[in-house]
Amino acid sequence: MINQQSAAKEKKKNQIFHFSQNTDGPELLYLQVYHHYRNLITARKLLPGSRMPSLRKCSQELQLSRTTVENAYLQLAAEGYIISKAQSGYYVTDIATKEPLPRQTEKPSLPPCRYDLSSSGVDRESFRFDLWQRYLKSALRQNQRLLTYGEPQGEADFRQALSDYVYQKRNIACSPDDIVVGAGVQSLLQILCPLIRDKKTVSFPTPSFIQGSTVFSDFGFQVRYRNKDSGVIYVSPAHMTKWGEIMPVSRRLELIRYAAEHKSLIIEDDFENEFVYLQKPTPSLFSLSGGHDVVYIGSFSRLLLPSIRVSFMILPPGLSETYRKKSEYYNQTASKAEQIALCQFIRDGHLSAQTRRLKRLYSAKLKELLTAVRETFGPDCSIQIGAAGTSLALTLPCQADGASVKKAARLLGLRLTVLKEDQSAITLLLSCSSMPTGDFRPACELLKQVIHSF
Amino acid sequence: MINQQSAAKEKKKNQIFHFSQNTDGPELLYLQVYHHYRNLITARKLLPGSRMPSLRKCSQELQLSRTTVENAYLQLAAEGYIISKAQSGYYVTDIATKEPLPRQTEKPSLPPCRYDLSSSGVDRESFRFDLWQRYLKSALRQNQRLLTYGEPQGEADFRQALSDYVYQKRNIACSPDDIVVGAGVQSLLQILCPLIRDKKTVSFPTPSFIQGSTVFSDFGFQVRYRNKDSGVIYVSPAHMTKWGEIMPVSRRLELIRYAAEHKSLIIEDDFENEFVYLQKPTPSLFSLSGGHDVVYIGSFSRLLLPSIRVSFMILPPGLSETYRKKSEYYNQTASKAEQIALCQFIRDGHLSAQTRRLKRLYSAKLKELLTAVRETFGPDCSIQIGAAGTSLALTLPCQADGASVKKAARLLGLRLTVLKEDQSAITLLLSCSSMPTGDFRPACELLKQVIHSF
Repeated sequence: MINQQSAAKEKKKNQIFHFSQNTDGPELLYLQVYHHYRNLITARKLLPGSRMPSLRKCSQELQLSRTTVENAYLQLAAEGYIISKAQSGYYVTDIATKEPLPRQTEKPSLPPCRYDLSSSGVDRESFRFDLWQRYLKSALRQNQRLLTYGEPQGEADFRQALSDYVYQKRNIACSPDDIVVGAGVQSLLQILCPLIRDKKTVSFPTPSFIQGSTVFSDFGFQVRYRNKDSGVIYVSPAHMTKWGEIMPVSRRLELIRYAAEHKSLIIEDDFENEFVYLQKPTPSLFSLSGGHDVVYIGSFSRLLLPSIRVSFMILPPGLSETYRKKSEYYNQTASKAEQIALCQFIRDGHLSAQTRRLKRLYSAKLKELLTAVRETFGPDCSIQIGAAGTSLALTLPCQADGASVKKAARLLGLRLTVLKEDQSAITLLLSCSSMPTGDFRPACELLKQVIHSF
Repeated sequence: MINQQSAAKEKKKNQIFHFSQNTDGPELLYLQVYHHYRNLITARKLLPGSRMPSLRKCSQELQLSRTTVENAYLQLAAEGYIISKAQSGYYVTDIATKEPLPRQTEKPSLPPCRYDLSSSGVDRESFRFDLWQRYLKSALRQNQRLLTYGEPQGEADFRQALSDYVYQKRNIACSPDDIVVGAGVQSLLQILCPLIRDKKTVSFPTPSFIQGSTVFSDFGFQVRYRNKDSGVIYVSPAHMTKWGEIMPVSRRLELIRYAAEHKSLIIEDDFENEFVYLQKPTPSLFSLSGGHDVVYIGSFSRLLLPSIRVSFMILPPGLSETYRKKSEYYNQTASKAEQIALCQFIRDGHLSAQTRRLKRLYSAKLKELLTAVRETFGPDCSIQIGAAGTSLALTLPCQADGASVKKAARLLGLRLTVLKEDQSAITLLLSCSSMPTGDFRPACELLKQVIHSF
């Protein structure tokens, strides 16, 4: 609308400059001037160092207004094609003749990875893609519902399904009103942190959950480790260590008492509680505390597909009210179609079935991996294994440093995670989740070869 | 694992207390004690005020350890079923006899909404669901790719497609490395804000984009309105007002010069630039500035489905490097399947086609709405309409306050957005986007009726 009339006028009287027509309407004049000169410069018809025609001269030649030409020059200058020299005019720079800088993303080529002992991916055979696709397709058919923005807090029926699910599985009694859905744990923490800012300090069990601690430090929290005297205590009771140690009930109760006495808030990230193999999952802190001063966080990435970005948090009464006052200020981050699909998937019992299947599968795979490791490394190795999860920690005598071991392994097509190292030993994290069982032995053999090469 | 042996021992010697078996293994003893008493309380077999058996007595009777009983009591107490009195023991409360509080979500029932003039939804006819479903289905077939977590910055091929798209449509030259994908504008701002924290102040054109200003104030920014002397200047050049006024090129250039002089950062939210009807979209601030000190934000919610949560930002060189140092600390929030689908959708030219279709459709609908409004309200009304968007602002003489008008309208099945009100007039925002064209006249008639009733 702006300049529309003057543009039309200018266009009419223009004699020299050829205008390209374009289906969307006449291109803005100054952009055409800009493109005209940019082409001359990149084609080296205007050489570096040469002076651009003055604004006056150019506007006369092209029969365009001085402003139009000036805007074109300004854009050329802004992009570095020309440079303005005081009281002298514009000069062509050498930008167009320079090769674009090579991107740093290219890495020296490595052999393909044959065995990935470090992956936290999901077992390919474990997930019923066809089933999930059916649910997602059915969600995509809900045209009318997909035409509108989602509820900021998460779809109401999905929150109802989640509330029923946690009641059944984790003995957590909560209203769907206390559940907030988001695209991953970080998205939830980004909503939670501003609500609990007065807590000021947060304690994590280890520095390894960098995505969590980053959000807290982004919001000005002081981040500490294993420091119970913090305003917020972040714990993953079913994932105390990477090899799946879980927090005993006695310590859970102790933690709740301690937090209540010190008015701390516990954030219970219930990561991998589904994989507590040897007994019924230990009770959640949320249910043990009766929902007082505990925020519960649940995710589906390890149960379904890591690529499905849906998590949820359950807020205790006070926080839930504080949140609701602000809830309209946050847009929902999780895909609506995926929420609709997951809602029905849970209602039909497929999430429970998938959990049982995965628990059986990973428990069996972990035993297989344990056997393969024991038989390959014999009495020299020491193994740590917890009550949950998909990994074990393997300590081997080795004088080399972790980085060298990792590199040598990678050159032979083996990907590793080093947990700890000292002068005489190295501790590796071996994950069974995404690797096929048949690969365990050859992977262990290859690892043995790597270690012996030092 | 924990307490496993002692639990087994306890179980053996237990004579009185009946244990339920459950397919997942023996339920924790203390939970059974807890459930036993909770059932007695809720069934009013233990009445409010009655004293619970002492720990000693109970553990003797049930032949369980004192700790087991204590844990059960603690949980009952935490949930409010019993209360501990000093030196006296535990007493049953009246919690179980109280009716659960009615939830506040129930609202007085309203007649169904017949005409929604306030909706920012998408026209039902405009979106080719079948086509999008085909792309999403094809993305869902990429099983191997969906088994792993997504790239924190966004899928590489999707960022490449976005980079090509903005070059073609918005004359923005950027590397895919400078693009960050996220589930909506807020998710992007939550990554951006910590990187530009030293700017301290942010200016928005109006208070209406509450989702944006909330994130800034969450991160400790001082939020101001129409204050150019701010560290960060947030603008939506194609959506200056809700009725679609756009920022003229001259003001864009002026803003860039001003920001460069004052070392401010511009955040250009290119919302609805696709709906600039009367000419080719005005150039982006990012391209005008040559990518200096401008962060560009693009979204698809108005082009595709509001329920698809995919946005992206383009960072200028300095910021892009700062971001990359931290990029691994943020998980991707947007659905991987939707990114894969959208990537191919863009490559195949469907996004451009959809944009052209929507632009034609909304332009025609807006004209129809304009005609309906003019013919219904005659010379009394005044109408503001911009060069972009899907809405117009209608000012009508009216002595009633906005809230009353809105309420009366809603009772007749008409949903309205009030933009402004004073003693003698009211300004309403009428949106044409989701309403069928045939509804414009009856909706206007109904509105007239509402206004005349005051």
